[in-house]
Amino acid sequence: MIVLFTDFGATGPYVGQMKAVLAREAPEVPVIDLLHQAPRYRPRAAAYLLAALVRDLPPDAVCLAVVDPGVGSDRAPLVIEADNRRFVGPDNGLFEMVIRRAGLVLGWEISWRPDALSASFHGRDLFAPVAARLARGDHVPAHKADMGRVRRRDWPDDLGEFVYIDDFGNAMTGIRAAGLDGHATVRVGGQVLTRARTFSDVPPGAAFWYENSSGLVEVAVNQGRADGLRGVRDGAPVTVGN
Amino acid sequence: MIVLFTDFGATGPYVGQMKAVLAREAPEVPVIDLLHQAPRYRPRAAAYLLAALVRDLPPDAVCLAVVDPGVGSDRAPLVIEADNRRFVGPDNGLFEMVIRRAGLVLGWEISWRPDALSASFHGRDLFAPVAARLARGDHVPAHKADMGRVRRRDWPDDLGEFVYIDDFGNAMTGIRAAGLDGHATVRVGGQVLTRARTFSDVPPGAAFWYENSSGLVEVAVNQGRADGLRGVRDGAPVTVGN
Amino acid sequence: MIVLFTDFGATGPYVGQMKAVLAREAPEVPVIDLLHQAPRYRPRAAAYLLAALVRDLPPDAVCLAVVDPGVGSDRAPLVIEADNRRFVGPDNGLFEMVIRRAGLVLGWEISWRPDALSASFHGRDLFAPVAARLARGDHVPAHKADMGRVRRRDWPDDLGEFVYIDDFGNAMTGIRAAGLDGHATVRVGGQVLTRARTFSDVPPGAAFWYENSSGLVEVAVNQGRADGLRGVRDGAPVTVGN
Repeated sequence: MIVLFTDFGATGPYVGQMKAVLAREAPEVPVIDLLHQAPRYRPRAAAYLLAALVRDLPPDAVCLAVVDPGVGSDRAPLVIEADNRRFVGPDNGLFEMVIRRAGLVLGWEISWRPDALSASFHGRDLFAPVAARLARGDHVPAHKADMGRVRRRDWPDDLGEFVYIDDFGNAMTGIRAAGLDGHATVRVGGQVLTRARTFSDVPPGAAFWYENSSGLVEVAVNQGRADGLRGVRDGAPVTVGN
Repeated sequence: MIVLFTDFGATGPYVGQMKAVLAREAPEVPVIDLLHQAPRYRPRAAAYLLAALVRDLPPDAVCLAVVDPGVGSDRAPLVIEADNRRFVGPDNGLFEMVIRRAGLVLGWEISWRPDALSASFHGRDLFAPVAARLARGDHVPAHKADMGRVRRRDWPDDLGEFVYIDDFGNAMTGIRAAGLDGHATVRVGGQVLTRARTFSDVPPGAAFWYENSSGLVEVAVNQGRADGLRGVRDGAPVTVGN
Repeated sequence: MIVLFTDFGATGPYVGQMKAVLAREAPEVPVIDLLHQAPRYRPRAAAYLLAALVRDLPPDAVCLAVVDPGVGSDRAPLVIEADNRRFVGPDNGLFEMVIRRAGLVLGWEISWRPDALSASFHGRDLFAPVAARLARGDHVPAHKADMGRVRRRDWPDDLGEFVYIDDFGNAMTGIRAAGLDGHATVRVGGQVLTRARTFSDVPPGAAFWYENSSGLVEVAVNQGRADGLRGVRDGAPVTVGN
């Protein structure tokens, strides 16, 4: 299985062009669109979202991840193996939280280059062919990455920031809920929100926070939109208290 | 074939997470996105749209349908078999019109539960694994459903309401066109619209109604947007007269 | 491989209904969504975009292309074979630039008709079954097309018009970059834009043009939106100078 995580947006020809390469190079491998609205131009925020969303993927999945504002510059292309799960994408911190939460991590810098490499679309020209080779079990020319350079050790373990607003207006943060108890509160825009188990446990129109289906702290309104609340927008800060 | 019908929206990670489960559990089975803009939080309106859209699907298709404002409450999970076609989803009326228009109907309440069931995402955790098992021909632990409780016998045979506005601005109703003659009119927002065969049969900019490609009464404007007409919006009432 | 190029939009049930037909008729063949935001109701603009986007597809791809404002009228359904690559869609100029840029071209008018042909959705009822047959190697009843009638010889080799604005706000034109040198400029809305290799070669916020990953002249702003510039919108004119 190849899983796609990009900031390309849900529309447009880019995802299809990547998939045409994958279908040509690894026709037997299913390809899943996990998310194409990753935080745009923000590899740090994307790193926390990616780590949460891949939590439940099969261990043999290859994740092709592209949030790459530096495409065409000299940032390196990477393959990361974290607890056997493999990731392909740019060296800009995007894999930091996947790496940090894994037991065994290996990293390679991809030395293979295609015959024709566009300046603006390495997702199609470089990362997709590499992901296809990994998925079908083939060798990819690469050398050991300098993990001291790849890592972002100064980034926090959880990110107090909204990293994704979904189509319902629910607002995901970069904070894992696992360590928080039932009395923990979320503060945003001067409001204090209490915890609920899920939507149907609060009245219609009520704002709350809950552990979402990917393990993250999420701000929501039952049958309403949390992104109408003050301070709730993609990239805005959020804090957890007691 | 597994066919998806949800109100999750076209963007976001939820469809991808369901598909990752399907690809893991039934890798050989093609998965089709039929619609992810089903009427949100409105299982009744969705029931009429679903029955129309599945009309032309292959008889062995398994339809995974999720319009589920009550997720996390105690509404039951169902498998419905209607004229051999199978449906998986919540017990909230979503399958009423599929049931009503079928000859032979069987219904089961799913008793299987996954090891980990999130409070907010039964589509991924419960319905997707069940749909995968059905599609690959495996047994799903379940008991006969109480169809008296499942049915919504007070709902009308056709719904005088806009149930879907498409990307072109065309407005589908919950009314089947098959029983209407060429003189039938549609009344919406004080206007009376006459019937045409299709777009190219009226001048550019003209409003009309026609039998759409799923058999529903649809309000449209040739090379224009019907959702700019007064009274035409998702959920608004519409009547058919002569 | 079957590749889809339509103006149906990214949302809605139409793409899924076509794919259900393809999955039923050619279950072994991968289906790729190349673009569903082709220039709406504008087969001429779509023709230039299509020719650019299919450039890198595998030669055995079957392209199912539907930009078809005349659906339900008497425009013919076509199969075009251009340098071995096959295209299925309406006879309205959509394939003109694919034909013009190919060495060997053959054209057929499809004489096969389905048992049930809706007036508004030939993509599902006629073009999809034909594409499936071609992809699985089966015969399609057809006769030689009158290429004099199919061709649009008065259309220019490159189109000085924006043909697609992507989700980032980048604006593709119908002009190929291959023949232009490094000093060529793009004029739009009274501004003169110079050429860059790619985004990271200009400062954040700077507007420029570059050869995009499909070989077209594209107007862009590094980490910004080109569709905020004066004169940059889908369908607007653009000229290239020196």
